[in-house]
Amino acid sequence: MKPQDKNKNLRYYRIDEVEQLFIHGRTNWPNDRKELPLFWNNSGVEVCTGGTELWIKVEADYSVYEPWYAVEVNGALVSRSMLQPGENDICLFRGMSEGTVKRAFFYRDLQAMGQDDDCHMIVKGLYCDGQFKEVPPYDHRIEFIGDSISSGEGTYGAGDDMDWIPMYMSSSHNYINMIAKKMNADVRIISQGGWGVYCSWDAVRKNNIPGIYDEICGLAHGKFNESLGAAKAYDSSDWQADAVVINLGTNDGTGIAAYNGSGGEVSAMADEPLSKKGCEEAIISFLKKLRTYYPDAHLLWVYGMLGYDISANISKAIAEYTAETGDSNVFYLTLPNTLDGEFGSRMHPGLKSHEKAADMISDYLLTRLGRL
Amino acid sequence: MKPQDKNKNLRYYRIDEVEQLFIHGRTNWPNDRKELPLFWNNSGVEVCTGGTELWIKVEADYSVYEPWYAVEVNGALVSRSMLQPGENDICLFRGMSEGTVKRAFFYRDLQAMGQDDDCHMIVKGLYCDGQFKEVPPYDHRIEFIGDSISSGEGTYGAGDDMDWIPMYMSSSHNYINMIAKKMNADVRIISQGGWGVYCSWDAVRKNNIPGIYDEICGLAHGKFNESLGAAKAYDSSDWQADAVVINLGTNDGTGIAAYNGSGGEVSAMADEPLSKKGCEEAIISFLKKLRTYYPDAHLLWVYGMLGYDISANISKAIAEYTAETGDSNVFYLTLPNTLDGEFGSRMHPGLKSHEKAADMISDYLLTRLGRL
Amino acid sequence: MKPQDKNKNLRYYRIDEVEQLFIHGRTNWPNDRKELPLFWNNSGVEVCTGGTELWIKVEADYSVYEPWYAVEVNGALVSRSMLQPGENDICLFRGMSEGTVKRAFFYRDLQAMGQDDDCHMIVKGLYCDGQFKEVPPYDHRIEFIGDSISSGEGTYGAGDDMDWIPMYMSSSHNYINMIAKKMNADVRIISQGGWGVYCSWDAVRKNNIPGIYDEICGLAHGKFNESLGAAKAYDSSDWQADAVVINLGTNDGTGIAAYNGSGGEVSAMADEPLSKKGCEEAIISFLKKLRTYYPDAHLLWVYGMLGYDISANISKAIAEYTAETGDSNVFYLTLPNTLDGEFGSRMHPGLKSHEKAADMISDYLLTRLGRL
Amino acid sequence: MKPQDKNKNLRYYRIDEVEQLFIHGRTNWPNDRKELPLFWNNSGVEVCTGGTELWIKVEADYSVYEPWYAVEVNGALVSRSMLQPGENDICLFRGMSEGTVKRAFFYRDLQAMGQDDDCHMIVKGLYCDGQFKEVPPYDHRIEFIGDSISSGEGTYGAGDDMDWIPMYMSSSHNYINMIAKKMNADVRIISQGGWGVYCSWDAVRKNNIPGIYDEICGLAHGKFNESLGAAKAYDSSDWQADAVVINLGTNDGTGIAAYNGSGGEVSAMADEPLSKKGCEEAIISFLKKLRTYYPDAHLLWVYGMLGYDISANISKAIAEYTAETGDSNVFYLTLPNTLDGEFGSRMHPGLKSHEKAADMISDYLLTRLGRL
Repeated sequence: MKPQDKNKNLRYYRIDEVEQLFIHGRTNWPNDRKELPLFWNNSGVEVCTGGTELWIKVEADYSVYEPWYAVEVNGALVSRSMLQPGENDICLFRGMSEGTVKRAFFYRDLQAMGQDDDCHMIVKGLYCDGQFKEVPPYDHRIEFIGDSISSGEGTYGAGDDMDWIPMYMSSSHNYINMIAKKMNADVRIISQGGWGVYCSWDAVRKNNIPGIYDEICGLAHGKFNESLGAAKAYDSSDWQADAVVINLGTNDGTGIAAYNGSGGEVSAMADEPLSKKGCEEAIISFLKKLRTYYPDAHLLWVYGMLGYDISANISKAIAEYTAETGDSNVFYLTLPNTLDGEFGSRMHPGLKSHEKAADMISDYLLTRLGRL
Repeated sequence: MKPQDKNKNLRYYRIDEVEQLFIHGRTNWPNDRKELPLFWNNSGVEVCTGGTELWIKVEADYSVYEPWYAVEVNGALVSRSMLQPGENDICLFRGMSEGTVKRAFFYRDLQAMGQDDDCHMIVKGLYCDGQFKEVPPYDHRIEFIGDSISSGEGTYGAGDDMDWIPMYMSSSHNYINMIAKKMNADVRIISQGGWGVYCSWDAVRKNNIPGIYDEICGLAHGKFNESLGAAKAYDSSDWQADAVVINLGTNDGTGIAAYNGSGGEVSAMADEPLSKKGCEEAIISFLKKLRTYYPDAHLLWVYGMLGYDISANISKAIAEYTAETGDSNVFYLTLPNTLDGEFGSRMHPGLKSHEKAADMISDYLLTRLGRL
Repeated sequence: MKPQDKNKNLRYYRIDEVEQLFIHGRTNWPNDRKELPLFWNNSGVEVCTGGTELWIKVEADYSVYEPWYAVEVNGALVSRSMLQPGENDICLFRGMSEGTVKRAFFYRDLQAMGQDDDCHMIVKGLYCDGQFKEVPPYDHRIEFIGDSISSGEGTYGAGDDMDWIPMYMSSSHNYINMIAKKMNADVRIISQGGWGVYCSWDAVRKNNIPGIYDEICGLAHGKFNESLGAAKAYDSSDWQADAVVINLGTNDGTGIAAYNGSGGEVSAMADEPLSKKGCEEAIISFLKKLRTYYPDAHLLWVYGMLGYDISANISKAIAEYTAETGDSNVFYLTLPNTLDGEFGSRMHPGLKSHEKAADMISDYLLTRLGRL
Repeated sequence: MKPQDKNKNLRYYRIDEVEQLFIHGRTNWPNDRKELPLFWNNSGVEVCTGGTELWIKVEADYSVYEPWYAVEVNGALVSRSMLQPGENDICLFRGMSEGTVKRAFFYRDLQAMGQDDDCHMIVKGLYCDGQFKEVPPYDHRIEFIGDSISSGEGTYGAGDDMDWIPMYMSSSHNYINMIAKKMNADVRIISQGGWGVYCSWDAVRKNNIPGIYDEICGLAHGKFNESLGAAKAYDSSDWQADAVVINLGTNDGTGIAAYNGSGGEVSAMADEPLSKKGCEEAIISFLKKLRTYYPDAHLLWVYGMLGYDISANISKAIAEYTAETGDSNVFYLTLPNTLDGEFGSRMHPGLKSHEKAADMISDYLLTRLGRL
């Protein structure tokens, strides 16, 4: 079956042919393949059109962790589903009024999956029966860097469900998506569940976000992902963030505590000694790195949706960073902890907790960056 | 691509081979085809299994209005999407813990589509790598009879969107689904947007729910739907409702007002004279009809989510029905009207309004039927 | 101590000297005493002034049930307290900006107390250091007739508190006050806890609201209250309600059930046989009575905040009333029942339940009466 | 009129005769006068009794700013009112069931009033017709130190009201009271609107809380307050806090900005040069001072309900304090800023904002101090 079977007016456009395409997320574009890989959650494509029907062609695969996508039409989530291996023709909308401009956003709902080299998702083209229009401009550009909370773990699924599976991760229901709507912001997410700025929840020092930050997608491994450009150096020159929000620390706290003996089995996994001092240095170091990519961005560290273990260390590290560099364009907010009754699945923050975080962060950033 | 390509342990079962299958919704089963048509929204199949992965094979088609489906795992909505023409292999979950019993519910999210004879959706089989278990029993059986509100119009989509399309209808987000969860009830829906108990919003007398109630799905027309058994007489003997909730009246009020001149064009469509008196007679007549199908069910009329135009007529008709028949096992509740800020798309009740209705109805029914 | 001791600019005005006085509540005014008795909850006086300070002189007494008052400044509740026997000089505000017009509303928070002939509350005068101004006009006039719910029982006090005392009754926190604010309405309340339209909760036939409705305050007994004019015939000619809201039925349901044997002790108190049929007749009769007082008012019956026992009887009675009289300017709304977690003290509806009722009633009335 | 006029069983007890008296707030007790001055908001007396009626005798006075009180019965706010000059006999409850133990808490709702030497409030005795019982123990002791937010400015009054008057200040509606309930905590408040840890909102260096902290009530001036013991040195030996919450910084930020030129008139009021560096030193110094009073208390700084101007300075100062002293029993939380729609009167945080702060602080403290 082909999209055109039901609507002869649909015309196929290779993704590089769509001039008005708005690309969300850090990716390798343009590239030689003329296809758009979606490495990170919330990465995707957005178009506007007066046509009545719109489809997207997406190639996907996986061995263990299947990619999920979500669709928003005029800013409202209408569909969310697993992708199947091979080429998928997915209808974003159909039967809508001709002439009225519709805005459709198709995006990866699943974080980059470092434990499945076969997991990938590539946008190849669009089918439409109308003209494409420019996507209205966003007011702000914001990069979010995080862990499972930013990967939306727990934002889908029943309260008791504990499986670590793509179905229970999202960017469609997480606080970042809410902030994007509240601020009319073009957001990008760099997140990996279980990792911190310094170590992972299971006390592995090398599993940290700064270590993979310099590549376009340092979490997408294997030959094929390499062929998509995942391992290429990240070049920030064409997308300068107004703000970078770093929501890291939860796993560092857990990892350091585990190393220090609160968890026997876990600390055995440790690859090197861990300490809060080391974590502070990692924070300072990461802030310096981010400043090299974004000379003018406001750097906002947020933390607390799952407790405040290393909050004092974050405060201290930021103060030292500022003292050392003279850079005071950096800030720290403690977010409301997730209360009883506010959890989603996987003992992770649920909708209400994400809303509180989104309220607090967006209010702060709108004040800092200016309400346009 | 086949489901088994990624998981060799998946075994395919024809739907009639799954003994523990729990079927939701009024349908033609068992039948000669050994395939399960899903005519009404919220109709579907539910299974429990300790397997790690579960797929469903569904055949679908349409000319104008494409069917949508939704998936709940352990009672939580995880996926919602359009179906494509032809056979669809849809994964309900994968990668979950072996042995833990998972409960999966796949259902039609779209109402029966009387205006598209080609619209259909048929469950053919399941793929699973574990044993099926019995679905835990429901505490109540409730049939809901309604219009666009019960078809979930407006429960998806942006506030300004007005297109009458399947994407903006649902049973996944409507008040009936909420009630099912609050009451642990096996619910069935018979609903058609724009229709009433007596006439339709555009003053057409013949477009009323009682007129199509006696067939399994009197809204599914055409040769093919007939071959699925849609036009067969409805036999209620094997599914006796504890309660029947009738949420009709909104379109009757609009239709009668239109006929009486408030809308020039619309009243021209009228096929016969309309009156509130006629509407009252239709209500009485429908109550009598429902009583023939469900001798012991509590009949609950609810009304008001979009205004109270004919509320007095409903009250009066119910009083007359009771006086005439001696049957006092019937009740009437006015529901909270949708307030500013509580609308979804299509100027229809949004989430907050559906929640209020669900609270009020489920509280009433739990008191009436007993809290198990 | 006198108010003038701290502010020499305060001037005392006998209440009959304040031309711009706005009187709330059904009362005996003007009268020979030139003093204003406040018989019913929410009865009171309202003034506007550019002065900096405002006091009120109120005489009160009681034997068993002490009267309570509440103060609103610019529409916000700022104070609530018991009155003491004798003359009370109560400061409504002080130290406010000169010139800015302040609006102050002093009112009785306690229902009329039929069981304490000494309970009374009389406004004698005002002290002010500025000119009085006209109170801005209200958009609607609405009379509420009710029981303990309209007397605000349970709107103050801890969840477990069960004493039937003035402290736990109010009009400052009840749904009627909320409606007054939402509709900018001048509201009056006629309510008595435990009574219905037909009988009381303890099956006493003569304890019903219609029986005391024709006097200015048929609940205020004794010589002194008589001297205040409580027993005079109510004359509605100078205050024609736009709507009359009757929130009765809860105690009728309880009383009839008690009479019918569900409560042995209680039914023994019954003074005459009780029946649902009798209750229906009482409803019809009361509607006729109300129509004599308010020929043009919309009559709205509401019911359900504590269950739906006699809802069908109310529906039926209203239908019969309309059939018999031809008067269709009467309506019935079932209100949301109080859910777990929504109760206040005394197992009565709490804030959340009152808010839901206020939303539903005010939305309906604004639609019916017109949003000004 | 005397309380005994209506209830002969009432017996008067001088406040020093009530052995089971629970005293709230920092005060001068016991003292030579055998009377209890209430200097700070939320200071008061709490008793339990099986009696039916309870009154309190309170002496009060003022020249400009009248004191307000509030009454809670069994943990629920039932009354709030102005006090009158002279002796006030105030009924806390009456007509309650004999034998059932009632818990009554009478407290000052108004902050200490440094600008009115005559403002005072002294508890002299209780009238009761039953025995006093021990007040059940609190789980935690927490001292709160703050500004207008902790004085509850804006928690009463209409949205547009801007007068700085006692009527619009409270401890009955503020976040501290909410925390007391959530934690079952004995709380004390030291707060002054407009002041900071370093300077006041109008850039006056000497108007800061640490400067008045060492006296029992450094804000209560004049001969009479002196006679009450206000100026005596504060002795913390008999009330060791488990935690001290410092909610200061808002006025420091405003004052420093004003000094630096954002407000011409205001900066003219400055009595000495102001700087953020100076503010940081004041924070460090204050933490050291608090540590001398409470060697073991957890020190929690909170900030942000009205913006985050000097948040980085607070972070930095705490880090320096810890580095310098080795004391890491100190923590910092940024609270949710007040959003549009969450304001009360006087452009100050309203109920919703106070609730958010209470949720965040109580959750943190319960985790830190242990959930008993």
